[in-house]
Amino acid sequence: MMLTLNDFRSRIEYSLCQQFASQEDVKTFCKSAIKSKVGVACVNPIYVKLASELLKGENVELSCNVGFPFGTHFTETKVMETKNGLVDGATQIDMVINVGALRSKENDTVYEDIRAVVEAADGRVVKTIIETWVLNNEEKKRACLIAEKAGASLVKTTTGVRTQYLNLIAENPKGAVLEDIILMREVLSPNVKIKASGGIYDLDYAFELLKNGADQLGVSRGEELIEDFITRYGNEVEIEY
Amino acid sequence: MMLTLNDFRSRIEYSLCQQFASQEDVKTFCKSAIKSKVGVACVNPIYVKLASELLKGENVELSCNVGFPFGTHFTETKVMETKNGLVDGATQIDMVINVGALRSKENDTVYEDIRAVVEAADGRVVKTIIETWVLNNEEKKRACLIAEKAGASLVKTTTGVRTQYLNLIAENPKGAVLEDIILMREVLSPNVKIKASGGIYDLDYAFELLKNGADQLGVSRGEELIEDFITRYGNEVEIEY
Repeated sequence: MMLTLNDFRSRIEYSLCQQFASQEDVKTFCKSAIKSKVGVACVNPIYVKLASELLKGENVELSCNVGFPFGTHFTETKVMETKNGLVDGATQIDMVINVGALRSKENDTVYEDIRAVVEAADGRVVKTIIETWVLNNEEKKRACLIAEKAGASLVKTTTGVRTQYLNLIAENPKGAVLEDIILMREVLSPNVKIKASGGIYDLDYAFELLKNGADQLGVSRGEELIEDFITRYGNEVEIEY
Repeated sequence: MMLTLNDFRSRIEYSLCQQFASQEDVKTFCKSAIKSKVGVACVNPIYVKLASELLKGENVELSCNVGFPFGTHFTETKVMETKNGLVDGATQIDMVINVGALRSKENDTVYEDIRAVVEAADGRVVKTIIETWVLNNEEKKRACLIAEKAGASLVKTTTGVRTQYLNLIAENPKGAVLEDIILMREVLSPNVKIKASGGIYDLDYAFELLKNGADQLGVSRGEELIEDFITRYGNEVEIEY
């Protein structure tokens, strides 16, 4: 099937989720998102308002991180963060689930937490980050099923934060593992999307993820991937996805 | 000056702030905090209620992490997290400041954020985490001065999260750097305490930090440090602090 450049752009979710990002970083980030015409730009709550102003009139969705990056917050806090994020101009939500509750087999707690955010998001896209790298396969499957039941639009592999830290000293540690995408695609209904995130720096690897069931790609270096697409394939490429 | 075992215990702030901690982990952690008679046990919001029940009647303060670990949340969210944490049984707050605003020289934003949490804490101890490892010296000094002005009881070096991640592949990366403690002690008034945190696994290094101005030590392995104290010194040790 042909993957057009425009389709590829729309599948790129570009994020600036560093703890120490400054206002200048947000400006540079938004410029890059506009230039690359990525589908989504994702920022931390404190920068939603600024990013919303910078992306005004552009065809880029703006997502607000919620409970980021640990998800260890009260549900009530996540709900407030969701509502405030939407008021400040976000059009989507990337929330981190309660990983501790999942590991403690407190399925109702995990469900209620996601459900409350989905309700607060009032019909907007809610992406649930399950943090695959700390979960075993049973936990990954259970997280997917609970997220789907709670009404999440999409399940996302990781926050990418571990990759951020590891990158300080290690080369390209993968956050988005191909085996996880395959497992998640088996478990989830076709209408629930998958976002692979963490350590996707390479176009060939990005294609592998799309071929195996990922719908969206969460990256911190969106511009490079898109430039590489254009250089290598121009306007479209044939891949099985 | 003599450092007694009891004084040393009271200076240990034992934390379980992992993203993936389960209920079982919290139970083990609280047992260890009680056994070691540490001064403070610190957990993520979702576990304050459970930890409060487990520590009931014990002489251990319970701290709730707020805006942890990034501090990139709305002030309003941090305020809610503070209030809910106190309702659930916390007696102290460990909050992460808005590092991005500090780096953007938005001093009023940094101040208002801390001030709102201090007010919500209603007289309880509020510790502000400034995340020294991403700051230059000017930023570290400014963070201390703003925290003091906003009424924080204590300034804390780091969340320790980077150390958590780096520990996966590196040996003992220091979060609590001696030079930072010295710098912070120069800037802060004597009534504002300093908590050194991140990568304090060694008793000799713990003493170095105390000697150079740290009042409290944030650790994830409190039991080991205290056992080492007892083995090596029994009930007290002479150190200059």
